Amino acid sequence: MRAIAAELYATVAEAPIISPHGHVSPSLLAEDERFPDPATLLLTHDHYVTRLLHAGGVDLADLGVGGSDFDPRTAWRLLAGGWHRFAGTASGYWLEREFEELFGITDEFTLDNADAVYDRIDAALDDPQLRPRALFDRFRIAVLATTDDPLDSLEVHARLARDRVVAGRVLPTFRPDAYLDPESAGFASRVERLLGETAQPHRDFASYLTALESRRAHFIAHGAVSADHGVVEPYTAALEPDAAEQLFQAALRGELDAADAREFRGHMLWQMARMSVDDGLVMTIHPGVHRNHSSSTYARFGADSGHDIPTGVEYVRNLRPLLESFGLERDFHLVLFTIDETSFSREIAPLAGFYPSVYIGAPWWFIDAPDAIQRFRSATVETAGFYRSSGFIDDTRAFLSIPARHDMSRRSDAAFLARLVVEGRIRPPRAHRIIADLVDAIPREVFKL
Amino acid sequence: MRAIAAELYATVAEAPIISPHGHVSPSLLAEDERFPDPATLLLTHDHYVTRLLHAGGVDLADLGVGGSDFDPRTAWRLLAGGWHRFAGTASGYWLEREFEELFGITDEFTLDNADAVYDRIDAALDDPQLRPRALFDRFRIAVLATTDDPLDSLEVHARLARDRVVAGRVLPTFRPDAYLDPESAGFASRVERLLGETAQPHRDFASYLTALESRRAHFIAHGAVSADHGVVEPYTAALEPDAAEQLFQAALRGELDAADAREFRGHMLWQMARMSVDDGLVMTIHPGVHRNHSSSTYARFGADSGHDIPTGVEYVRNLRPLLESFGLERDFHLVLFTIDETSFSREIAPLAGFYPSVYIGAPWWFIDAPDAIQRFRSATVETAGFYRSSGFIDDTRAFLSIPARHDMSRRSDAAFLARLVVEGRIRPPRAHRIIADLVDAIPREVFKL
Amino acid sequence: MRAIAAELYATVAEAPIISPHGHVSPSLLAEDERFPDPATLLLTHDHYVTRLLHAGGVDLADLGVGGSDFDPRTAWRLLAGGWHRFAGTASGYWLEREFEELFGITDEFTLDNADAVYDRIDAALDDPQLRPRALFDRFRIAVLATTDDPLDSLEVHARLARDRVVAGRVLPTFRPDAYLDPESAGFASRVERLLGETAQPHRDFASYLTALESRRAHFIAHGAVSADHGVVEPYTAALEPDAAEQLFQAALRGELDAADAREFRGHMLWQMARMSVDDGLVMTIHPGVHRNHSSSTYARFGADSGHDIPTGVEYVRNLRPLLESFGLERDFHLVLFTIDETSFSREIAPLAGFYPSVYIGAPWWFIDAPDAIQRFRSATVETAGFYRSSGFIDDTRAFLSIPARHDMSRRSDAAFLARLVVEGRIRPPRAHRIIADLVDAIPREVFKL
Repeated sequence: MRAIAAELYATVAEAPIISPHGHVSPSLLAEDERFPDPATLLLTHDHYVTRLLHAGGVDLADLGVGGSDFDPRTAWRLLAGGWHRFAGTASGYWLEREFEELFGITDEFTLDNADAVYDRIDAALDDPQLRPRALFDRFRIAVLATTDDPLDSLEVHARLARDRVVAGRVLPTFRPDAYLDPESAGFASRVERLLGETAQPHRDFASYLTALESRRAHFIAHGAVSADHGVVEPYTAALEPDAAEQLFQAALRGELDAADAREFRGHMLWQMARMSVDDGLVMTIHPGVHRNHSSSTYARFGADSGHDIPTGVEYVRNLRPLLESFGLERDFHLVLFTIDETSFSREIAPLAGFYPSVYIGAPWWFIDAPDAIQRFRSATVETAGFYRSSGFIDDTRAFLSIPARHDMSRRSDAAFLARLVVEGRIRPPRAHRIIADLVDAIPREVFKL
Repeated sequence: MRAIAAELYATVAEAPIISPHGHVSPSLLAEDERFPDPATLLLTHDHYVTRLLHAGGVDLADLGVGGSDFDPRTAWRLLAGGWHRFAGTASGYWLEREFEELFGITDEFTLDNADAVYDRIDAALDDPQLRPRALFDRFRIAVLATTDDPLDSLEVHARLARDRVVAGRVLPTFRPDAYLDPESAGFASRVERLLGETAQPHRDFASYLTALESRRAHFIAHGAVSADHGVVEPYTAALEPDAAEQLFQAALRGELDAADAREFRGHMLWQMARMSVDDGLVMTIHPGVHRNHSSSTYARFGADSGHDIPTGVEYVRNLRPLLESFGLERDFHLVLFTIDETSFSREIAPLAGFYPSVYIGAPWWFIDAPDAIQRFRSATVETAGFYRSSGFIDDTRAFLSIPARHDMSRRSDAAFLARLVVEGRIRPPRAHRIIADLVDAIPREVFKL
Repeated sequence: MRAIAAELYATVAEAPIISPHGHVSPSLLAEDERFPDPATLLLTHDHYVTRLLHAGGVDLADLGVGGSDFDPRTAWRLLAGGWHRFAGTASGYWLEREFEELFGITDEFTLDNADAVYDRIDAALDDPQLRPRALFDRFRIAVLATTDDPLDSLEVHARLARDRVVAGRVLPTFRPDAYLDPESAGFASRVERLLGETAQPHRDFASYLTALESRRAHFIAHGAVSADHGVVEPYTAALEPDAAEQLFQAALRGELDAADAREFRGHMLWQMARMSVDDGLVMTIHPGVHRNHSSSTYARFGADSGHDIPTGVEYVRNLRPLLESFGLERDFHLVLFTIDETSFSREIAPLAGFYPSVYIGAPWWFIDAPDAIQRFRSATVETAGFYRSSGFIDDTRAFLSIPARHDMSRRSDAAFLARLVVEGRIRPPRAHRIIADLVDAIPREVFKL
């Protein structure tokens, strides 16, 4: 089985990387600066990593989280001192791969060699081949999608495209959550800004929709292929225009109760699908996360500081209004991600096994790891096959981890396919075709690349 | 491990098939006609298969679903063109087995050989040995249960039994869902028909119960051993006669609100258990399916067109009223099926590990597949052993797939047992006894055969 | 892989047992009497075992459950007659280990040899080396925590500590459920007793808290390191003193409705965390069990008679008020157990991967078994590593099964680690360190031993 897996993996090990969803900042490539130091590069901005040190008793301030003043070398020693905590984790695996592939470090990382490792990485960062643009090409990234605010001018993206600073494409992604949720702080003023910047003459629901459509068009003009939605639940609702107008006006006045706010959010998710049918942006949903679980940590360090916690998600009833309206539309693509693994076999695979528009999102976040990926394939393939899945997404802020993540995904899929071959469930030529499609044809089709 | 699995499998590979729950039409055997063509035989009526082609962009009408006018050969080519979609799925595995076992086709199915495969199968169907009755015997089917409407005369079953056209038994199954759910379309007129056909003098709740009891008796007289219940949730409620009467009258008038309709359904599920205690019919529950998720597909193609989607199911609180009343009754058998895998280790195995009446239903529908069966055994055996499980059910409309499905189940159980042997958790003689019991003694005991 | 697993296991096979949570009675050691007979010893008090015989049709009365008059030898034969039911179960595995390790019985247990096995065990029980204290030392138990009522005088514990009858420590555990749940039968009079025995001058909420604190102090003085909480849901609520006072007074009057009772319980769980922050007792939560599911069995045989059934549990929203108040406190330890496996990857591992106070409780009850332990590690390690887990707890009433349970846990962890080594995900020296820490350093740190 290991031999077959190795053979399958070898056929895609060097394939270009398609990364249709992630959180790398386009400025990284625009500025192309030397990475400041090993801690800032590998630790501070990776909340997968900082959270586990925090769980072990480290103060996030000492790691530089949220812009805290910190000493990078001290932070680095805290990572070395807590290194045992990462054994067996996906984060530990990625960091080890980066140590080895980028910096040639293969010794076990310990408190004893922490300073030496720091110095070695720091020195290596002087190498122009370790600047962002050079790495982008070295990583063979064919497509990298960023995640952007609807009012972003996308000038950085325009510059990157114009100057062709890297061989691959860098695409923006429309992420309108904060403009759609009347319970998010500053909703009304944000919507005012949206209406203002798109020069809407009125303050009504129709203008609000027009404004959103116009920003989507702006994203499409800058190469965007998808719109992403981070919602607590994928609740959707088709409303009559009058009802939507009333909720919208009440939302602007800050007068929606919880039930009406839910209804408004549900209708806006429905409207996003409607717009995707019209303008062709792939719709992706990343639901079921309780963001900023620890208020005091949020107050000190801001968002993305390691305490976004998954919750259970229901898709079948919640998405029904949306699917009733648009689920059979031919060019509509809806990718359903989950961190609630129970939904893979029970809800997502059966939905994607019927609706031509629905795709099974690859494991995401906490379940983007070797064992979890085996569980994912095992839970979805028997119901929906390989060709209703989305292809891998790395969803990362940690630019350097991109190759390690895609590599792990390819190894995991090779292992899964090898097992099916050994068990006589797939013929070898089919397995070869599938592994090739998983890293290329499938993400290209799903994300309309 | 593979050698032990092969040895265990070999002991049951040729064992007769006991199929205590499924959806094959008894007319198939009564009429014993040549199967019309390969597409109608293997594709059109198998919504496991048509749904995945539909997800890939095929119009169900082109596959003949729901009685659509269609060209079988064109449909067949659509299957060949979408064949990659079935790699790794249970449906693909079954079809490949049928190609090989019944028609001697071992080449990979492709668009290139689609016509040749079609012609070969079509020619083979002229062989009288490929008529339904001959196949029934060739498949070594000892028991085949169908699923039938409570008002079915069961004349076809009577004829099959009288004429002994096949070596095994063909049994009806009482499936009263549409007569118990006041929210199903046409409920009142259906109940009127029930009361009329059983000659009830009154239109009250007591007469309604008597009518149902009388139809159950009719089924028992025709060999039925079980009553099956497809409910969204296994909610049960013990009500006082007056309360039940009021709900019943309101239901007939179409005046129940959602909460009362739930209460009525819950009470009728409780009444079904009460009747099972009285008349001995095994009670099986297949809960947790959102039927006909796509209204427009339902409108065009009717039920069972591939968009019944599982949802989460709660058993412990929902079934408690029923189990409080009947759970300790000695001859009461209640088989709990699920497509919500989370309930196996958490709810169903613990319930079946205490209540003498409760059995763990075999994996069903989407989870009736090799990996899912391993998960099922892993999730239930450590808590409840093998002897609280139901034995395999194929639950299929696709007559030709029956041997492939039972064969897969036997191979999967052999693989699971082989692992326990290798891990030193079961001795080989015990494993041999268990695999034999799983295909014979256990389903016979659970379904009172 | 098996060789690596065996090597890892060998390093901890003989390590002392730390059992920080269980239900062995301290009187067992205080009295140190000969075990009365094989059935009473191995069968009657082990509701894991009696429940499965009951499911197979045996009357619990015939097994001596709940103090029923019974014939031990007849009960023993019932166990032998139902022995096939335990194949593949954790209970069967433990019993077989006990047969072999303690009594040298390696033959398959059958009805034929049931009497001989009975006689052999019964004779062996005359051996003073098979008395509780001797076994305690032979088992190499370093720490054994019992579970005790808040008003227990703990005199037995004091005597055991004073007389040093065993080499290890025997610690009480504070378990106040019945004093915190206004819906438990006899709540008001139990609280009156609590207030009385702690000589509270008033009957108000503050006195109630003081009384609980005083009993916790009593437990701490007798060596307790933890307080355990068995709740249906881990709902928590921070209330203003006035609101708490009102709920408390209504609770004493028996006038709380269901919603208010939930609020009171939720506040008391919050208060228990507050007290743990103050007095240092580790807080453990065992939620999500529907206790005494069968009323008639409860009426005949009392609690713990085999029909406590798990239900789904939500941790993220329920625990948030508690974690907002205390989750970042440095010396606060909160161990979250579950029998709802879905929460491991979705909720518990992410929480423990951020909050320094939160630990992932080891698999408990029905999921304390070889396959389930693999699933547990697979579901939690990739997110939170090994060092956020609690170490194994046996949670057992069955004293003789303690070594078998810990041994199984060690073998399971060795197997899991061996797989990671083979897959290149952990280096061998790290795996050796982890397995050693899992049985010693980790439980000592988590339970403050």
